[in-house]
Amino acid sequence: MIASRSFLADHGVVDGRLVARARYDVDDAGDIVAAGTAASLQAVPLAPLVRDFGRAVVLPGLVDAHSHAFQRSIRGATHQPGSDDDDFWSWRTAMYEAAGALDPDGVYARTRECFAEMLHAGITCVGEFHYLHHRVDGSRYDEPDALSLAVVEAASSVGIRLVLLECYYERAGAGAAPLPEQRRFCDGSVADYLARIERLRERGVTVGIAPHSVRAVPANSLRALARYANEHALPLHAHVSEQPRENEQCAMEHGCSPLQLLQRCGALERSGGFTAVHAIHVDPADRALLAGHTVCACPTTEADLGDGIVPASDYVADGVALALGSDSNTVIDLLQEARWLELGDRWRTRRRIRLASSTVGQGERLLRAATRDGAAALGRAGVLGELAVGRKFDAAILDRTHPVLRDVPDAFLLDATMLAATAALVVHVVVAGQELVS
Amino acid sequence: MIASRSFLADHGVVDGRLVARARYDVDDAGDIVAAGTAASLQAVPLAPLVRDFGRAVVLPGLVDAHSHAFQRSIRGATHQPGSDDDDFWSWRTAMYEAAGALDPDGVYARTRECFAEMLHAGITCVGEFHYLHHRVDGSRYDEPDALSLAVVEAASSVGIRLVLLECYYERAGAGAAPLPEQRRFCDGSVADYLARIERLRERGVTVGIAPHSVRAVPANSLRALARYANEHALPLHAHVSEQPRENEQCAMEHGCSPLQLLQRCGALERSGGFTAVHAIHVDPADRALLAGHTVCACPTTEADLGDGIVPASDYVADGVALALGSDSNTVIDLLQEARWLELGDRWRTRRRIRLASSTVGQGERLLRAATRDGAAALGRAGVLGELAVGRKFDAAILDRTHPVLRDVPDAFLLDATMLAATAALVVHVVVAGQELVS
Repeated sequence: MIASRSFLADHGVVDGRLVARARYDVDDAGDIVAAGTAASLQAVPLAPLVRDFGRAVVLPGLVDAHSHAFQRSIRGATHQPGSDDDDFWSWRTAMYEAAGALDPDGVYARTRECFAEMLHAGITCVGEFHYLHHRVDGSRYDEPDALSLAVVEAASSVGIRLVLLECYYERAGAGAAPLPEQRRFCDGSVADYLARIERLRERGVTVGIAPHSVRAVPANSLRALARYANEHALPLHAHVSEQPRENEQCAMEHGCSPLQLLQRCGALERSGGFTAVHAIHVDPADRALLAGHTVCACPTTEADLGDGIVPASDYVADGVALALGSDSNTVIDLLQEARWLELGDRWRTRRRIRLASSTVGQGERLLRAATRDGAAALGRAGVLGELAVGRKFDAAILDRTHPVLRDVPDAFLLDATMLAATAALVVHVVVAGQELVS
Repeated sequence: MIASRSFLADHGVVDGRLVARARYDVDDAGDIVAAGTAASLQAVPLAPLVRDFGRAVVLPGLVDAHSHAFQRSIRGATHQPGSDDDDFWSWRTAMYEAAGALDPDGVYARTRECFAEMLHAGITCVGEFHYLHHRVDGSRYDEPDALSLAVVEAASSVGIRLVLLECYYERAGAGAAPLPEQRRFCDGSVADYLARIERLRERGVTVGIAPHSVRAVPANSLRALARYANEHALPLHAHVSEQPRENEQCAMEHGCSPLQLLQRCGALERSGGFTAVHAIHVDPADRALLAGHTVCACPTTEADLGDGIVPASDYVADGVALALGSDSNTVIDLLQEARWLELGDRWRTRRRIRLASSTVGQGERLLRAATRDGAAALGRAGVLGELAVGRKFDAAILDRTHPVLRDVPDAFLLDATMLAATAALVVHVVVAGQELVS
């Protein structure tokens, strides 16, 4: 608890708000022991090591709550017109081809490239929604957790924090066996899946429980997964209502919406425990079910795939937290994701200022989605996602001399950062007090 | 016509397509005298000066067909909730305040800052839709063209090409005198406005005719402005159907849509001569009127202001060209604008691959909007917006070693550039063969 390093910058976020001449004192474990303005801390001696970022903006390390890292390898590769109408489902075919081509070394290499770009973009913690588990034909590798461990190793070699959202996949749809290209996603039973979870936890891997969707997981399995997550207080994530077809199929099979089914299966029992990824095609009753939980929006992917716009301001009104994910990783930039959470809502509603309120400014609100609320969705509330005493000093430091920010008055700096800047302005990245990008 | 410089790069656009090992030979006037792959030009000796950009992607200099430069000064400043519902019109009030605060030195300084950021972002030609003309009370400056000349001087000092779209403003709406804050926009008569146009043209300024909108300009003035533009083959630009209210008011005053009124007034007479800025709230009949003309979309601004989504794929189907503008300049990044032209359309239609076709790839199509079709809208077709023999060598050079592009296979490089990169990857900018940013 003794500060070994003091970090300074002309601007930085402290307790969710941007202050001038920010100072953070950090101990050897990377924990913040003091944070405030330099003036407010002037009675406290600087630590032995002082790092002054100068004309910079210190943000909490960005938290990417939903990623499929390997999909970065098809960046730019899915935009040629096909023979049929192009939509989410034709994109999925191309994506499955990429998924089918990867062996453990390939998973490691593609994931490592993706995580390296994330760190470079100021992302210090990623929730990797990982669904490649077995050989292409569904048979086990000699090391049955080979692909999960490849992801863990990739994160470790890059230095990014990982919450491994282990995906459970069981079927192509109601009563339908997995497609050949889905076999490697499938464990065969919840028991086999939970055995892997136990093994990973024993190795010290931070995991979350991730039934893929109500399409890919039947109700009894959903129930078992939710029970395990609740019992062990693990984050529970699922894709929800990304496409209208999923809702239609759920209505046919279960006579209700995906969120209603998830509730019946116990997924919403633990307050704050559930994260609905996408949750675009929802009605007011669905939204109400999510109060106290999180929606993880992935705007650039949801636009790319023609999914639709997350009704973000409706969720805020209903008491639902909002996190952000880079999902397909065509774009890896949580500032852009945050901006389009707000701008998509403006497009949808034809009004302005959707997520800010009289007490929480626009920049603060969008930053919170890109940091604190993502950390909470990944089960890291109170540890990551904030620059405050007791939290880890994970930070993304932006160049304030860049043309995008250099002429912006201090009073509007955070709003301009979230509404105009991109991750390309990140010039330094710190994880647990260690500067990894500079 | 003798090449004085040869430019090389691992990748570059030639005649609208990305090629490996691109080479451009440029004469002293900045004109391209040869362009192709290094292999195709190997029989031609390199020019005395050779500049190799190495692992880079050479794009034509980006063309920003619609900007209000001074609005950059309120970047980040309009996102606090107001007391009423926030929309386009409350934003306009904040913007008018900024407009009212500027004297000629202020116009020069704010415009120069904006143009400097544009050049840094790879924009080598801007269409500045300029509507600040007189003192705040509407009276003339001693130099009656002081503010227009301040914009010309700002462009010249930065080195960016300018097409000065001189705005004509006459009234607050049907039968309504200009509001006090609109007085400085107003010349009082078309004759006075055209006298300024003549003075600017005599000085060698490249101008366009820009009736602000059918709201701000009555039919007889629209007619006179269109006639002048047609007679002198000058680009004719107007804001069209940005907000539903404009359509409603036009229907009340004229019994037709804004585009129908513009047609009646002769604005669409010269093929390719008219650019409708925004043109969001249109019906099929409106779109058909624009065949052979241009719509200038400004997606980040149109999202910011809650305007709505330009129906881009419908315009393409109707034979309407698409250009791009940074408009309010909160974001200055034509790669982002291009991407959201496509992604907005995907969001709107819930399908994928909207603007590409079997003959024009996605990246090529979006690049064309950000370059060639913008140049054509500004009256510079055949001169700017393409890297081909006889065109100016204006170029934006992107860093291919940046994490966003470095792992992308060559086959998908242009699509990935347009779908994933940002202007922050621009590392060199060339105007007429002169390297201005490096």
